[in-house]
Amino acid sequence: MCGIVGYIGDKQAAPILLDGLSKLEYRGYDSAGIAVFDGQEIQIKKTMGRLKVLEELTHGGETMKGCCGIGHTRWATHGCPSDVNAHPHFNKDHSIAVVHNGIIENYAKLKKKLENKGYEFQSETDTEVLVHLLTDYYKGDPIEAIERVMHRVEGSYGLGIMFKDHPHHIYAARKDSPLIVGASSMGNLIASDVPAILKYTRSVYYMENEEIACLSGENIHFYNIDGEEIEKTPTTINWDINAAEKGGYEHFMLKEIYEEPKAVRDTISPRLKDDDVVIEELGMTDEEIRSIRKIDIVACGSASHVGMTAKYVIESMARIPVEVDVASEFRYREPIYEDNMLVIIISQSGETADSLAALRDAKNHGVRTLGIVNVVGSSIAREADNVMYTWAGPEISVATTKAYSAQLAAMYLLSMKFAKVRGMLTDEEFAQLRSDLIQLPDQIESLFGMKEKIQKFANRYLAAGHMFFIGRGIDYAIAMEGSLKLKEISYIHSEAYAAGELKHGTISLIEDGTLVVAVATQEKLYPKTISNIVEVKTRGAFVMALTNLGHTDIEKNADYVIYIPKTSQYFTNSLAIIPLQLFGYYVSVGRGLDVDKPRNLAKSVTVE
Amino acid sequence: MCGIVGYIGDKQAAPILLDGLSKLEYRGYDSAGIAVFDGQEIQIKKTMGRLKVLEELTHGGETMKGCCGIGHTRWATHGCPSDVNAHPHFNKDHSIAVVHNGIIENYAKLKKKLENKGYEFQSETDTEVLVHLLTDYYKGDPIEAIERVMHRVEGSYGLGIMFKDHPHHIYAARKDSPLIVGASSMGNLIASDVPAILKYTRSVYYMENEEIACLSGENIHFYNIDGEEIEKTPTTINWDINAAEKGGYEHFMLKEIYEEPKAVRDTISPRLKDDDVVIEELGMTDEEIRSIRKIDIVACGSASHVGMTAKYVIESMARIPVEVDVASEFRYREPIYEDNMLVIIISQSGETADSLAALRDAKNHGVRTLGIVNVVGSSIAREADNVMYTWAGPEISVATTKAYSAQLAAMYLLSMKFAKVRGMLTDEEFAQLRSDLIQLPDQIESLFGMKEKIQKFANRYLAAGHMFFIGRGIDYAIAMEGSLKLKEISYIHSEAYAAGELKHGTISLIEDGTLVVAVATQEKLYPKTISNIVEVKTRGAFVMALTNLGHTDIEKNADYVIYIPKTSQYFTNSLAIIPLQLFGYYVSVGRGLDVDKPRNLAKSVTVE
Repeated sequence: MCGIVGYIGDKQAAPILLDGLSKLEYRGYDSAGIAVFDGQEIQIKKTMGRLKVLEELTHGGETMKGCCGIGHTRWATHGCPSDVNAHPHFNKDHSIAVVHNGIIENYAKLKKKLENKGYEFQSETDTEVLVHLLTDYYKGDPIEAIERVMHRVEGSYGLGIMFKDHPHHIYAARKDSPLIVGASSMGNLIASDVPAILKYTRSVYYMENEEIACLSGENIHFYNIDGEEIEKTPTTINWDINAAEKGGYEHFMLKEIYEEPKAVRDTISPRLKDDDVVIEELGMTDEEIRSIRKIDIVACGSASHVGMTAKYVIESMARIPVEVDVASEFRYREPIYEDNMLVIIISQSGETADSLAALRDAKNHGVRTLGIVNVVGSSIAREADNVMYTWAGPEISVATTKAYSAQLAAMYLLSMKFAKVRGMLTDEEFAQLRSDLIQLPDQIESLFGMKEKIQKFANRYLAAGHMFFIGRGIDYAIAMEGSLKLKEISYIHSEAYAAGELKHGTISLIEDGTLVVAVATQEKLYPKTISNIVEVKTRGAFVMALTNLGHTDIEKNADYVIYIPKTSQYFTNSLAIIPLQLFGYYVSVGRGLDVDKPRNLAKSVTVE
Repeated sequence: MCGIVGYIGDKQAAPILLDGLSKLEYRGYDSAGIAVFDGQEIQIKKTMGRLKVLEELTHGGETMKGCCGIGHTRWATHGCPSDVNAHPHFNKDHSIAVVHNGIIENYAKLKKKLENKGYEFQSETDTEVLVHLLTDYYKGDPIEAIERVMHRVEGSYGLGIMFKDHPHHIYAARKDSPLIVGASSMGNLIASDVPAILKYTRSVYYMENEEIACLSGENIHFYNIDGEEIEKTPTTINWDINAAEKGGYEHFMLKEIYEEPKAVRDTISPRLKDDDVVIEELGMTDEEIRSIRKIDIVACGSASHVGMTAKYVIESMARIPVEVDVASEFRYREPIYEDNMLVIIISQSGETADSLAALRDAKNHGVRTLGIVNVVGSSIAREADNVMYTWAGPEISVATTKAYSAQLAAMYLLSMKFAKVRGMLTDEEFAQLRSDLIQLPDQIESLFGMKEKIQKFANRYLAAGHMFFIGRGIDYAIAMEGSLKLKEISYIHSEAYAAGELKHGTISLIEDGTLVVAVATQEKLYPKTISNIVEVKTRGAFVMALTNLGHTDIEKNADYVIYIPKTSQYFTNSLAIIPLQLFGYYVSVGRGLDVDKPRNLAKSVTVE
């Protein structure tokens, strides 16, 4: 979603802001802007479109003088993408500039009041009410004005603010939208996410809800919403900035697909011992694991497809009932919390707004929560009772690949742990699963060999109007993710169906040549899925099938077949998804689209 | 799916067979055929396409002499629709003819064996193995040959068989595919469904699994699979045949939409007392209702959308945890059955193969089952521990409307019953719900007034490439059904999304002019859905919104608005679905499609 960077120190601010914003580009945005105090005035440059436009406009920031500034990349929520809706926003006399992430929910009411008082609005954004409200409350003390605004608005915000009267300070505040403060010898910084400032510092303060920060070049002060100064302790970030670079690949997505073996290995290795799974961060005794009566997995997008897979795996392997909920539905459906229930939240960014809200709801009801999160120190990681990290490293491409695979691996480990403790696995079964799990990274790697073959096939479907993915059981979960991967980056309408459900309506869409991708990796369900393949074939579909090595008989029914190596029935998703990710990737490449930053999409969805 | 009719008596058989098949047309088919013994030989006429072609070919049956015959409408499973794949199927010397519903699962193996023995196959069907197998086993005694075939084949079947050697008999057998025998003064009949023979008799024998019937013009004998004669008792059918006619409407679908107020009223009235819900067929004591710990709702297609709605209603109103499963997934996912669990199966036809299998699985595990079924005496109705009928009457159009609405009404009653017994409703709350429920039929009727308006709107989207339906909570369930209704009869790819989930990928498909139908009838979720409307609007979507009377503010954000009358938040689906059914209907009509019999679809899906 939106990104914020701010800097104050002894260097020229604009190039630092632009560089920081470029590190947040992967979060998705539609416009960008920066505000810099040039010694006399606050100057703003902002524009719709890519950051590159803003860089050219300012010669990489060179033409904007001054050592104090804030910058922003915007993902439209209120008001369409445009120059005027881009941040930063000014008040009338240009004495206050604001950048804002999040959504002000009572903005319409506030806007009306401010208009009645004579304030004129330039943009359609909710953000602009903040600027005028600050102007209205400002009597010389920025902290006091910010405090009052915070009391007045409802919703979520991460804010960067400059006051012309206080040219040697920048201000920040947050609620339900992430914001960090970085301290360095060349000045101090604010940002909505770590990568933006990693080049300058590894010492970071995580701001909590309703906290305010005041930064000068030398000092950082924090205040609570009552204006009382508070103490905070910095965290040291150990990320490698190079991990976030594209390397030799054409797109981040392809690079990240190639990083999947490592992501899975890094997630598995530290936790897989000879005869046990050891998840130190789990924080649950064997007694507690044995007492779990129900698991609710809450997630959004691809992470919810991991949840679907985990439901099948955990229910079958550990015999614990599992319910999977899309977070935006879970939080509003009055979930029934039961005794000895465990709520698992899966989120790459750890900042997904709906998932975070679901986590809080569960906690408020006294239910134990476990986060499966990729970003260390993120909101979900900090607020869950326990967190099990996926070690996929930073993921830049909007369409998730390696984080998805790492999440799957984490859920396999969790399931094996639960099953073992609850006595549902013999030593032999455990040993077999362990051996299959260890092989996964190499098997994933072996699938890259079919890259060219898949690209060739993908090129035949660049003009497809729509397509379908079908499967049963875990294969249905694979189909869901394969379909999402394709459509989010290719803009071709594809839909996944439980194979047995297709004939209850949707099969009427099948006509001559419609592409149906059929996933058939589950041995027990194989003959059933073959029947469904025959059904769609009979109606003219072109069938691309994905099955386990050895099932050559499928070639009698399918038009095109991809085989995956043999592994446990529980783990086939990890292999089957690779050709589907590559298929989506090459369709998008073939259509000449912006693979890593598909239109309308954001990397992590921090508004609901 | 496929339909079977057979007749033996003193009238000409062919016109009776054609008439019977025409009553089964609504079940969906792609080809049709009849076999009649003309005094010397068995004659077969069969053809791909509509029944009308067969009628023309035989001058309404006139040109086929003889008083003994079998007929069939086919819905392809093995082998594409064609003349040669149509039933009946012959053996080489035309001495045995067979019609078959269902799927022979071991047909490939049997076919190979028969070919080795020298039998030549004409068609690609699984059915043809039955003909040759019968020939192989036949030594003069038809019952003995049929028995042996039944022991040999795996899968499901309803069979009608003629032997040239026994010209005054027709034979029938079944397993997992419905078949009935009708007795009348003008002869005896077999059929796969009641409407086919209702014109001739109301006295019907329901055949059970692995039973054989032998009919002459005067007698009916039944045998078990060991050839032992058994006694059966006929049932009297009270259906009105006129209820299955189109009346003055252009299509059954529109007629059935207009029958929704009656369907809902008939389902509610007998059960709604002054201060209680009385569901006599429920067969559960208050103690048993209080002890329910979990409900699993299993269904397919539209019935599963009723299940989704019921989950929200029951969980919120009665606070019992509910899980909803698509039947084809449920039966293979090793469901975890718990103590005091109730499995509810929803099916219009009561013959849906996957739902029936799920029911049996639950029963085998000792779990209590409740069927919500529209067809009296159907398999699910007979096999469930208890059955609560929906009183929608026969539904002919493939796209369900009135049966869906009646199912919703049944689930409301069930939820109110459970909530009341478990002390979750005050008398005032119950009285309010009761009053809202009673008003529903009139409110549904009032919505027909917007027919022309919706038709006009629908005409603007006849050429749409794809569209989306969004909503939250119950509105999501409504969106699912609205989307399915549209796509199954218009062949336009539409997809329903939980409104909060759209931005996790699928929003990338939204471009200028994409139609998004937003359902916003849930007051608590209204502002959240408005935010999602703004999101898609910002990206160019054309938004048609559906909301409660009074929410005129939505016109600021939506391009086109439909209002529904006020009712309980639990019941809005019953009103909101009406304009969406009409929308789907008029898009299909506008595109000139076969509204009542969309391509590839069957009314009731009796194969998995």
